[in-house]
Amino acid sequence: MKRYERFADDIAELIRSGVLGPGQRIPSVRYASQTHGVSPSTVFQAYYLLERRGLIRARARSGYFVNSHVPRTFVEPQALAPVSESTEVDVSGLVFSILDSIKDPSTVPFGSAFPSPSLFPLQRLARSLASATRSMDPQVVVSDLSPGNPQLRRQIALRYMVGGLMLPMEELLITNGALEALNLCLQAVTEPGDLVAIEAPAFYACLQVLERLKLKAVEIPVQPRQGMDLEVLAQTLDKHPIKAVWCMTNFQNPVGASMPEASKQALVELLRKHQVPLIEDDVYAELYYAQQAPKPAKAFDTEGLVMHCGSFAKSLAPGYRVGWVAAGRYAQKIERLKLMTSLCASMPAQAAIADYLQHGGYDRHLRKLRYALEGQQANMLAAIARYFPAQTRVSQPSGGYFLWLELPEQVDALKLFQLALAQGISIAPGPIFSPTQRFGHCIRLNYGSPWTETTEKAMETLGKIIRSFL
Amino acid sequence: MKRYERFADDIAELIRSGVLGPGQRIPSVRYASQTHGVSPSTVFQAYYLLERRGLIRARARSGYFVNSHVPRTFVEPQALAPVSESTEVDVSGLVFSILDSIKDPSTVPFGSAFPSPSLFPLQRLARSLASATRSMDPQVVVSDLSPGNPQLRRQIALRYMVGGLMLPMEELLITNGALEALNLCLQAVTEPGDLVAIEAPAFYACLQVLERLKLKAVEIPVQPRQGMDLEVLAQTLDKHPIKAVWCMTNFQNPVGASMPEASKQALVELLRKHQVPLIEDDVYAELYYAQQAPKPAKAFDTEGLVMHCGSFAKSLAPGYRVGWVAAGRYAQKIERLKLMTSLCASMPAQAAIADYLQHGGYDRHLRKLRYALEGQQANMLAAIARYFPAQTRVSQPSGGYFLWLELPEQVDALKLFQLALAQGISIAPGPIFSPTQRFGHCIRLNYGSPWTETTEKAMETLGKIIRSFL
Repeated sequence: MKRYERFADDIAELIRSGVLGPGQRIPSVRYASQTHGVSPSTVFQAYYLLERRGLIRARARSGYFVNSHVPRTFVEPQALAPVSESTEVDVSGLVFSILDSIKDPSTVPFGSAFPSPSLFPLQRLARSLASATRSMDPQVVVSDLSPGNPQLRRQIALRYMVGGLMLPMEELLITNGALEALNLCLQAVTEPGDLVAIEAPAFYACLQVLERLKLKAVEIPVQPRQGMDLEVLAQTLDKHPIKAVWCMTNFQNPVGASMPEASKQALVELLRKHQVPLIEDDVYAELYYAQQAPKPAKAFDTEGLVMHCGSFAKSLAPGYRVGWVAAGRYAQKIERLKLMTSLCASMPAQAAIADYLQHGGYDRHLRKLRYALEGQQANMLAAIARYFPAQTRVSQPSGGYFLWLELPEQVDALKLFQLALAQGISIAPGPIFSPTQRFGHCIRLNYGSPWTETTEKAMETLGKIIRSFL
Repeated sequence: MKRYERFADDIAELIRSGVLGPGQRIPSVRYASQTHGVSPSTVFQAYYLLERRGLIRARARSGYFVNSHVPRTFVEPQALAPVSESTEVDVSGLVFSILDSIKDPSTVPFGSAFPSPSLFPLQRLARSLASATRSMDPQVVVSDLSPGNPQLRRQIALRYMVGGLMLPMEELLITNGALEALNLCLQAVTEPGDLVAIEAPAFYACLQVLERLKLKAVEIPVQPRQGMDLEVLAQTLDKHPIKAVWCMTNFQNPVGASMPEASKQALVELLRKHQVPLIEDDVYAELYYAQQAPKPAKAFDTEGLVMHCGSFAKSLAPGYRVGWVAAGRYAQKIERLKLMTSLCASMPAQAAIADYLQHGGYDRHLRKLRYALEGQQANMLAAIARYFPAQTRVSQPSGGYFLWLELPEQVDALKLFQLALAQGISIAPGPIFSPTQRFGHCIRLNYGSPWTETTEKAMETLGKIIRSFL
């Protein structure tokens, strides 16, 4: 990381923590340069970066100011009351009809689950793919079956090590994206009819996996800042024979919530007491805006009860379908399930990513990606402030690329979805994130695409449609 | 196909059908050239090719002769008597311990499930991969989710069309290899505890899929020349509530049996009467030695009851993990299951194969591959004749790369496996091909690697170990 980037991160941290409030003037270049012992050009570069990140704004002749919408000009969405009952899951029909309808590439993709592929180094990856495949020993076809390409597994283990988590390479299994990993994890520890504790709201793919495996869900509320409500979870574990807990500990989809470290530790401890495995879906881990990468719950796991799933789909290589799982005491069982399900992940894709991680400049790419996403979040928050009703509640995640909005109660999210789609705008309506189809006036918006006039205009249109419900 | 190749195929057909018997002299170059109206050099090239294919042999000064081991110097293995009971499937432990033990690349791979990767155009494929990925529109990441890359699906549909089968591209779903396709098919039409009719012996991966999905198996005997015994199947369908039939109609693994066209038609008709779906595992379809590609049972399906699964793993691109399914009336259900299981197949691999099918010379490669496999079969049959006990019964498939051997009854295939492995030779012992672990004195041998002194020597060693049981 370069000096100006480090300095920009320091300032960003001050803004995020509220030391520098919205609208406040930030130190002049000369003052900052003197007090921090850096050159004026470093400060300039840092401020320019912060501007691109959407955190500050230059005003002619008067210096730089913290953007007025950052942070906390919005009230956060409320967590719903817990249900404390188990539900059979049957949402696929609704989810698929919605996903089908937003496939049109000309639609403004606020409803998409992916960031824009334009943010990824696809050309550089293609080079890695070409060179890795050219030099691929034909014998890998036989020797590289599951658990997967050893170079790739070593690189992944190295990244965890740098982040302070010692994951033995032997524990790592490469999968066809995180979705397959999550399927295998659930299958390894449940039988049809079993109960699984999930988040409310939960990523709809989680609901679909439960549905496919004929499992029942118990919904645990997600707090916008704390993540899964551990008190409710503790009560649920006392009351129900829960076979597994599925949880996104960082930048939860759709709310954007991240669990503080202490909560992650408490979660692991709680599950250790009950000897219930945790399926940790950590696919957004690399998309943090703060200075430090968030730790996974896996870091606090001493008994191999945490099955930790990751992926390159959201941070590097969408479409390559390369994910992984470090499954603790379930590792061998899951490797065998994988061999029975799809043998192994595509070998050229594995080799390409292994090569890229070694030579491609992943950390540089990630820094750029995080800045872009953070800036786009600021843009979308500003647009919400401009166009949406004042009562709108919004989450302000410190990573990822989703906002979770609680709209006024009169708004019917499913109707809103139809009306917006008729205007060429997709959104993800709240009910697809719950097996009980709650969150009827909530929506998830994706800010994973570069901000353009079209997106600005689409937000304005969306605001108008929302107001028409009032 | 070139003229001499066509002429060679004509002669090969005469040998296969027995018109030209073992040891018989084949027409002289001059005679053949005159009677068939082709140039002497075409005949020379054809005979040279037939020699490489292991079908004929030159004797100094006396011309060419049909190889003495081809065909039918061996008695064929017998089909076992039907069991007519359903069995819970629990073979994975045994299968995995055997697969684990043969991973060592220095082992002679008679027990492998794959042909040698040296037979595949991996360099040419790597070029397709590089060029397809370089020109890949980033938007495919979103638009190319399941059912999969449209160019690839079009190419696959085209190949079927050329073979006389009209498969609408819309019916085709790309999967992570055929194994995933087969998993999805079974899952689409069964619930845990259901009965599925399978072959006896059956490919062990089929048994593992049943085990994973907690299904029960009813074993239907496979006749070395006829494939699945339709009489037994008919009785079984009358007696049991069978939910699906799983069948390899061409070059069945492990026996190598292929169903004649009339049997395929009868099979489809039988299942139509019972309204039971057929899962047709047709991954060896391209590896035929005859002049004509065999038709799949799918060709006789008028009601969408056949779920037809294919793959490039055995004929072009092992390790790429690209397979497909044309699932008839179950197509939409399976596409949705796929989206819930692993979203889609790896996009670079799909794009690479699409490019290769268009520009890479697949048919030329396949012709070479078929000749190589046919020649290797001849070599292995000759080695069996030289080194194995006279009572050995052997299948002589007209495609694929497996021989199924019924050894004298004193031979314990599991013990033989251990003894051979201690000498650096792997085999696939009979009991892993049956949920009731029958076939205790049978083995499957893989002739998918180029014949060398090492393989010849390994066959001699294997013969000695087998004789030690007698």
